[in-house]
Amino acid sequence: MTNLRIPGPTPLPPSVLAAMQEPMIPHRGPEAKELFAELRAALARLHRTTGDVLIFPGSGTGALEASIVNLFSAGDRVLAIVGGAFGERYAKIARAFGLDVVELPVEWGRAADPAAVRAALAAHPGVRGVLLTHNETSTGVTNDLQAIAAAAREHDALLLCDAVSSAGALPLEMDAWGVDVVLSGTQKAWMCPPGAAIIALGERAWDAHARAALPRFFWDFTQARDAARAGSVHVTPPLTTLYALRAALRDIEAEGLEHVWARHAALGEYVRGRVAGLGLTLFADPAHASNSVTTAVVPEGIEAKALLDHLRERYDVVIAGGQGKLAGRIIRIGHLGYVHEPELAAALDALGAALGDLGYAVPAGARQAAAAR
Amino acid sequence: MTNLRIPGPTPLPPSVLAAMQEPMIPHRGPEAKELFAELRAALARLHRTTGDVLIFPGSGTGALEASIVNLFSAGDRVLAIVGGAFGERYAKIARAFGLDVVELPVEWGRAADPAAVRAALAAHPGVRGVLLTHNETSTGVTNDLQAIAAAAREHDALLLCDAVSSAGALPLEMDAWGVDVVLSGTQKAWMCPPGAAIIALGERAWDAHARAALPRFFWDFTQARDAARAGSVHVTPPLTTLYALRAALRDIEAEGLEHVWARHAALGEYVRGRVAGLGLTLFADPAHASNSVTTAVVPEGIEAKALLDHLRERYDVVIAGGQGKLAGRIIRIGHLGYVHEPELAAALDALGAALGDLGYAVPAGARQAAAAR
Repeated sequence: MTNLRIPGPTPLPPSVLAAMQEPMIPHRGPEAKELFAELRAALARLHRTTGDVLIFPGSGTGALEASIVNLFSAGDRVLAIVGGAFGERYAKIARAFGLDVVELPVEWGRAADPAAVRAALAAHPGVRGVLLTHNETSTGVTNDLQAIAAAAREHDALLLCDAVSSAGALPLEMDAWGVDVVLSGTQKAWMCPPGAAIIALGERAWDAHARAALPRFFWDFTQARDAARAGSVHVTPPLTTLYALRAALRDIEAEGLEHVWARHAALGEYVRGRVAGLGLTLFADPAHASNSVTTAVVPEGIEAKALLDHLRERYDVVIAGGQGKLAGRIIRIGHLGYVHEPELAAALDALGAALGDLGYAVPAGARQAAAAR
Repeated sequence: MTNLRIPGPTPLPPSVLAAMQEPMIPHRGPEAKELFAELRAALARLHRTTGDVLIFPGSGTGALEASIVNLFSAGDRVLAIVGGAFGERYAKIARAFGLDVVELPVEWGRAADPAAVRAALAAHPGVRGVLLTHNETSTGVTNDLQAIAAAAREHDALLLCDAVSSAGALPLEMDAWGVDVVLSGTQKAWMCPPGAAIIALGERAWDAHARAALPRFFWDFTQARDAARAGSVHVTPPLTTLYALRAALRDIEAEGLEHVWARHAALGEYVRGRVAGLGLTLFADPAHASNSVTTAVVPEGIEAKALLDHLRERYDVVIAGGQGKLAGRIIRIGHLGYVHEPELAAALDALGAALGDLGYAVPAGARQAAAAR
């Protein structure tokens, strides 16, 4: 089977595949009620929050859009921290709904500086929300969510966190860090197929929601919460994806969330070591390198697309290329969700071999390490 | 296994269950491109259109919302034909986005009269769109889509068709009948789990889209079409649901769409005959009774909830109750998607037995018919 090592969708564990064979049920009946209750409780524990977690049919982008239309009114000012393609996307969504978007640009590959966030908030009074990509999947950088959430709180702004490629993989203490909104999709560290958006909301977010005037129906948090509290849903839920999610969350809690975080930390270190061992330049600032996705600069003389195609065709390994302005310049290796060292070792061996096939001089140490396995 | 006979989610055929075991793929890679192309082509054939069919992560309600935010501007006038809970929902969504909604109320259980639609359009000039529930799942009535589409066209209004419980079950000739927008979800006659919204659009809809000013991002038809034409997607697609859909559409085309329609027509007649044979009063106007869902009045002396609970607990058969103002007054039997006479016969036998258990005098003919099986 293809060794899929992109930053999502991620491979599915056997328990998740098995769960997707469960039959359909009435989505407003008693089994569904139990399913939703289990998911909401587990997701709250896994977000480290006592707040509400809502689940919608959707995607990560859907979660971002839901946060905008539920928490703001047209003309509201937000600060968008933009250090990659997903930061750009969040800002673009906010603009599409008529918000007054102040952008704080961050060099791609670097993390946002909490002091710069504080300065931007001081320079632009009246910011109601800070839009932050916790883990920027396009650059392989993890931002300092805790410090930036503290900065937002000092300026009485909500902290909205795109956690699509961090939630369930990287430490995230929603309540303790004062994060108001955490957004993710099922298809990354939650180890499920894409198909549902997961939205965790703290009390300050609900206060903002009560004042927010943008029109909404499908994404409406009040309808979703009222239905959820009654054990129901306000729109038809993606049942099979939710069966998958139940199985995945049980697996995660059986492993233990902190163990899952530690596994990702160890795998991040492993991948960075192996990539550096191939003589490649890591793209992300080492002080803020992501433990869910590793980025590396495509070496001179190698064409990124040719490398990815060759890896796929010759070795049945799929990694990702760069996005936006990094297209052609970097490669990205996903290591989040259902992943352990052997699959990554095989992928990195193949990467070394593919680079060699294309004429790149693989360091002897890396060749020996691969041969020894 | 539970005999699930609600109007959706509907039972999954073995081919669909098997398809959901397929592994994740990069959603912007070559296999995904093939998947999307096959789905779009099959859906166009099954909608009888040469227009574009877009697929979003979502639900039926998501499809309705998408049609509003993509085709109108705040203040635009629409005519909402409301003869049940889903007609009400469509009108409610239009109002949530600031449209000027003229309602044409239709008695629940009756079909909309095309002459009344014409009169309403004449009385309310400037209507840009007519919102019609093709098959009103809450009442078991099928509206005359072809005649109402003609009326809309005479008044230069778009016809937006909620086909959630009709598409893939009941005759629907999108291009030949001049239907501009057809909206459905995967979980009804398409024989899949819930999780994707399916939106077919004709040329007049695209013209309206070009002028529509409501804000949108996730649901944006231009982004979705541009990505689709490039073999890609603008948001992460619900892959497993799409694997399911590919298998289901192959099954439907192997059976033949017109055969599928005929099967539903035969099953509709069968269910109505059996329900009448139990001495129950059919709720929907017989001239417009739906072939995908049958409604019957709960007989005097029987409590609807007690009947549904007993059917479920004693016979493992699940049918639905009434919605909105019909709660407690009717029962609803779904017969759409992956369904054949034997499962319906078993459900109707159980219904007769359950009614008898609760003290209802089941006609001797119905008891004999059940005993003979």
